[in-house]
Amino acid sequence: MFHTTDQRFMQEALRLAVLAAEQGEVPVGAVVVWQNHIIGKGYNQTVMLNDPTAHAEMIAITAATQHLGARYLNECTLYVTLEPCPMCAGACYWAMLGRVVYAASDEKNGFSRLQVSASNIFHPKTIVHQGLFASEAAALLKQFFQKLRS
Amino acid sequence: MFHTTDQRFMQEALRLAVLAAEQGEVPVGAVVVWQNHIIGKGYNQTVMLNDPTAHAEMIAITAATQHLGARYLNECTLYVTLEPCPMCAGACYWAMLGRVVYAASDEKNGFSRLQVSASNIFHPKTIVHQGLFASEAAALLKQFFQKLRS
Repeated sequence: MFHTTDQRFMQEALRLAVLAAEQGEVPVGAVVVWQNHIIGKGYNQTVMLNDPTAHAEMIAITAATQHLGARYLNECTLYVTLEPCPMCAGACYWAMLGRVVYAASDEKNGFSRLQVSASNIFHPKTIVHQGLFASEAAALLKQFFQKLRS
Repeated sequence: MFHTTDQRFMQEALRLAVLAAEQGEVPVGAVVVWQNHIIGKGYNQTVMLNDPTAHAEMIAITAATQHLGARYLNECTLYVTLEPCPMCAGACYWAMLGRVVYAASDEKNGFSRLQVSASNIFHPKTIVHQGLFASEAAALLKQFFQKLRS
């Protein structure tokens, strides 16, 4: 299911998640890849930008469409360290992403909280894979919230 | 269910939808209202900005949070001319909108295509009303697509 290149790109997303944490943001990172190159990057910036829509995926998707000069990302893969929420899954739908790979699950806020299948909320043609570096991504989040509480 | 002020604000959203159509965009408009004042406006700009996330609601929500300097819009009402899609309903969830009023239904792309209830995809505390100026909003869309085909 996962290739060496998948690992490399998810590691980049994890690096962005660390950047988010360093800036006091919930650590989630995302990259969009086209033809083996990263064409969009994002990390959660909701506090910094004071914008509830500034999730990692939203920023990475917008960046990628700007790079390509196209509204559709059907030849691209989005790597994100956390299960996309309904907003971000909806953005993936509009961008018609070719593939979405996410690391950790998010039972509280991920798209699956709606009890819909991935093929329902993402575009039916989007291939969705989960679990790559899941424990690493979850550990980052756990660490962040533990630090916040102490 | 609807007040005179609701009509006034939805008319402003309709005016924005007309602006969108004039610029070749699918005619959807939105405003965010706080204490009887419009603090955020948006119309669909996905083609113009080459950004699949540039829906009327997303732009209006971001504008409103920038105006208030707060990430939450729990004291605000969003007026939008078309049923929000899952992405926009998800953005309303994060912004914790106090109330959402939409005009026309969108069976193909609205949040209800997921067969979830409004209280599920919006924040449970968000009051959702539909149908104000629904025929006017639907007529704008119908006219736009008819023109596009001819």
